[in-house]
Amino acid sequence: MLNQEFIDSLKQLVGEDRCTFSPEDMVAYSYDANPEKRAKPEGVVSPLNREEVSEIMKLAYRYDVPVTPRGGGSGYTGGCIPVEGGIVMAMDRFNRILEVDKDNFLVILEPGVVVKTLQEEVDKIGLMYPPDPASTGFATIGGNIAENAGGIRAVKYGVTKHYVMGLEVVLPNGDIVKTGSKCIKDVAGYNLTELFVGSEGTLGVITKAVVKVVPKPEARRTMTATFSTLEKAAEAVSAIYATGVRPATLEFLDRISVEAVEKAIGFGAKPEEGALLLMEVDGSDHALDSEVEKIQAACEQCGVITFRKAESDEDREDLWKARRALSFALCEIATEWEDDDISVPIARIPKMIRKLDEIAERYNIIIANFGHYGDGNIHIGMTTGKDGGPFPKQAKQDVVKAVVELEGRIAAEHGIGCVKVENLHWNIDEPTMKMMRSIKALFDPKGLLNPGKVMLKG
Amino acid sequence: MLNQEFIDSLKQLVGEDRCTFSPEDMVAYSYDANPEKRAKPEGVVSPLNREEVSEIMKLAYRYDVPVTPRGGGSGYTGGCIPVEGGIVMAMDRFNRILEVDKDNFLVILEPGVVVKTLQEEVDKIGLMYPPDPASTGFATIGGNIAENAGGIRAVKYGVTKHYVMGLEVVLPNGDIVKTGSKCIKDVAGYNLTELFVGSEGTLGVITKAVVKVVPKPEARRTMTATFSTLEKAAEAVSAIYATGVRPATLEFLDRISVEAVEKAIGFGAKPEEGALLLMEVDGSDHALDSEVEKIQAACEQCGVITFRKAESDEDREDLWKARRALSFALCEIATEWEDDDISVPIARIPKMIRKLDEIAERYNIIIANFGHYGDGNIHIGMTTGKDGGPFPKQAKQDVVKAVVELEGRIAAEHGIGCVKVENLHWNIDEPTMKMMRSIKALFDPKGLLNPGKVMLKG
Repeated sequence: MLNQEFIDSLKQLVGEDRCTFSPEDMVAYSYDANPEKRAKPEGVVSPLNREEVSEIMKLAYRYDVPVTPRGGGSGYTGGCIPVEGGIVMAMDRFNRILEVDKDNFLVILEPGVVVKTLQEEVDKIGLMYPPDPASTGFATIGGNIAENAGGIRAVKYGVTKHYVMGLEVVLPNGDIVKTGSKCIKDVAGYNLTELFVGSEGTLGVITKAVVKVVPKPEARRTMTATFSTLEKAAEAVSAIYATGVRPATLEFLDRISVEAVEKAIGFGAKPEEGALLLMEVDGSDHALDSEVEKIQAACEQCGVITFRKAESDEDREDLWKARRALSFALCEIATEWEDDDISVPIARIPKMIRKLDEIAERYNIIIANFGHYGDGNIHIGMTTGKDGGPFPKQAKQDVVKAVVELEGRIAAEHGIGCVKVENLHWNIDEPTMKMMRSIKALFDPKGLLNPGKVMLKG
Repeated sequence: MLNQEFIDSLKQLVGEDRCTFSPEDMVAYSYDANPEKRAKPEGVVSPLNREEVSEIMKLAYRYDVPVTPRGGGSGYTGGCIPVEGGIVMAMDRFNRILEVDKDNFLVILEPGVVVKTLQEEVDKIGLMYPPDPASTGFATIGGNIAENAGGIRAVKYGVTKHYVMGLEVVLPNGDIVKTGSKCIKDVAGYNLTELFVGSEGTLGVITKAVVKVVPKPEARRTMTATFSTLEKAAEAVSAIYATGVRPATLEFLDRISVEAVEKAIGFGAKPEEGALLLMEVDGSDHALDSEVEKIQAACEQCGVITFRKAESDEDREDLWKARRALSFALCEIATEWEDDDISVPIARIPKMIRKLDEIAERYNIIIANFGHYGDGNIHIGMTTGKDGGPFPKQAKQDVVKAVVELEGRIAAEHGIGCVKVENLHWNIDEPTMKMMRSIKALFDPKGLLNPGKVMLKG
């Protein structure tokens, strides 16, 4: 229960209209995109500026109140769920793009700006903000930075951390720190920026960011290629990389995913097609035809069954159809799926898929795999099917073990949050975990900022 | 003076042949590429493996002995100079490339490997390690990581931090931590890797690294373009960027640099040519002709005086001649130069150059500017000339102030080291500095690891 003095002080600080403690309101702040995890806060506050964030943190520290920052609430691992109660700090008022500096390829903005808003704003003047997770329409840049979000263009353009040049962050003690700069080359002091990126809001509250943008590619080409097996597709990927062409997007669907989509929307997959690659190249229009030819030749070397090229925007939509229909198609197999987001060194994707096949067989479950082949990132969906009974939780642990055996990571782009916190030790050994805990304790000695996330208390 | 017990323990730990305390030997470990800074250690030890590094750190902690790690000793800011005495930890025995993983575009190696050795090793199998500082022939990868080295390809390929995927680091307390992974997408725990990159060996001793490599570009093209002024060159750079072409290299020489080189080697510069751009594009052979055309058109729009394209390797060497001859050419103006390495947001280079011109006038000195235009990184040479008397130190402070006025950084790619440590506060405000000091104290409570570097004690 929140202390009444704390509540009164908070109301006095931000005014009654920017904080709420009513039980009904709490529901809206109790979840993210994870289907299972739920926890209600005891209060919600929407600060207006960094000074308020700082005062709220100091107040929370005085009264030992947990504070959970929240952006768009679109995460998959419960990173913004207030598992220890306390207050949610909703960053929705921090929604301004402060400056678009075209000459220096920079944007200065507040964390509550929706990623798509940023993308559309810079698109108007011929620039691109590359990180492109599926949730761009509602995820905020602050959440993307906190989770180091990835997306479909990471294979060529990298992930969110590659675009964050500087941050303004309020620390749990109320100090306001400024990290990084507007300069591409910057070795002045420790790199605190990238310590905050991906720290899931456990070290400080982001109140401003400087992000890098790039010239928008002149053109792009979209292709799909199908193969009998994922091993064959993997050979094609190696052959493509050997040509020196770096696709901007390199997505894959495994056999179960392909079959599900075929059943759902009939996109023309033949029974022998057990793997699909969806690829895009972008850059100077002049160069792309030759890149497409190289990719096609590489696929043909490796036994491609069907190779399709988009000749128009309509064609492109058509090629994306299978990938886009996937979530819907999988609902035909089962309404309840256990999802996971993992990564392995790229060349080990086929091995990982074989291990997943073994797990499916071991537990008599269905596993559908798809995701970002080009950066080794697999999204795994597991289910016992429509009438299959309860999901064998042990299968999830087997996935973790398989990931670790291949030197992969249990979290690729969706964070650890509170959902995977008990598994982090599979990736992080004890001396390193100890150092991470010390860093957390240094920034947040009382453990009040987004508690229960990233790692267990020591 | 080193405690005799410490010396005896160290000898026992590594054997007499891998440590030395003789005054003559100390000279070799007292300097780096900085012409002024010198400080001798009291002992030098060359550990063979991480366990020895760990034991040495523990021993140093027991006896309060400063430890300064050293790679190739090619830094410019005294990062490896043992300013507080103690021992130098020479990483020369850590010189093995442990694994080249072609399929996953990774190399695992020890920190004492010379950067050029790494580059040549991967070149043999069609791969490239992009960071390319001028010192690749003798700088080590450990030193490059510690300093977050840049170089001439950063404009397209980024700096060292973009290629470090994971590290093994021995902490001052002897703990061995493992950061990062072999995976492109990895959000498992805090990003400690990038906290170590650029921390100049003040937080831990790197004993192993996983670095990313990329497919070697199929081809490249080299061009030079001259303009009447750097402002004109700057317009051309904006026009080039607007085409979407991203050069791999975009170097510049200002008027004094151009004139010096012309005088020294006669490369054909006309008196009206007051700025030179040296550019390279790389990628698929097919695409490059069109990129060169676009660059040429952009330069022509902006009043280029002479545009040259290399048609052969010989031509390329010829175009690089002016850039390569620069150090030598500047020696004709003066033998003693005060060098600096700064960066500004790229579009502000002309403004920065104007400020430098004003400083030159104010103190009646000569300032030659050159460097990596594409990433806003200016190398500044300042001198009073051959018989010009002592250098006015205040001019250096004026440079710092000019940098700060343009939101630039006082250190771009050469580190802070011990040379710029008193100026860091110009870039880092007090709350942020306090956090950096706390991080240093967390890792190294006694302040024994590479003391006197990066920042002043609080």
